[in-house]
Amino acid sequence: MQPRTKLWVERNGKIVLSDYRVRLLRLVDETGSLADAAAAMHLSYRRAWGKVREIERNLGVKLVESEAGGAGGGGSRLTADGRRLVELYERFRTSVERDVSDEFLRTFRSRA
Amino acid sequence: MQPRTKLWVERNGKIVLSDYRVRLLRLVDETGSLADAAAAMHLSYRRAWGKVREIERNLGVKLVESEAGGAGGGGSRLTADGRRLVELYERFRTSVERDVSDEFLRTFRSRA
Repeated sequence: MQPRTKLWVERNGKIVLSDYRVRLLRLVDETGSLADAAAAMHLSYRRAWGKVREIERNLGVKLVESEAGGAGGGGSRLTADGRRLVELYERFRTSVERDVSDEFLRTFRSRA
Repeated sequence: MQPRTKLWVERNGKIVLSDYRVRLLRLVDETGSLADAAAAMHLSYRRAWGKVREIERNLGVKLVESEAGGAGGGGSRLTADGRRLVELYERFRTSVERDVSDEFLRTFRSRA
């Protein structure tokens, strides 16, 4: 038997952070482009942008900032708040996964 | 912000224990009747019975036993294995909820 968990964070009853949402933000950070992050998650640009705006609205914090086009085209990057939230959530998720595994072994070991 | 989790246990890739499934088993234990347990969860008797059989099949363990009718009608009760699994899962879930709350406070406290 293996324990499984789905984890997310709500604010005022609305989902603000989840594996899916944080993966999108992490990809913006890695690629420097919301379009590339969206493509990597098989999302339309419009949908990815809407998701980012939804998280920002629910948190009341700006997470992604975009640069105007120019010669090389525009790009997007995380704000300092965005990067901090991604890092905290990933740390939180890693800790929870370890705890769940430990608690499962402690509870069910040699009994099921 | 509040952390939220959905927890379950798989065996060979199939869900065997979850809040929903364990609630059904717990209600059988409390009411002594699969029909009453089903009603309390707004499930048809047929669906509740199918769910119990599915868990038993996936776990390879008998969890619920039924008595034949007689004057007072038949009843259902958990086997020793069934009661033990319900207790272990509930203990596991309580521990995980406490851990998730602790990890969340530890990670996000005064930073978000």
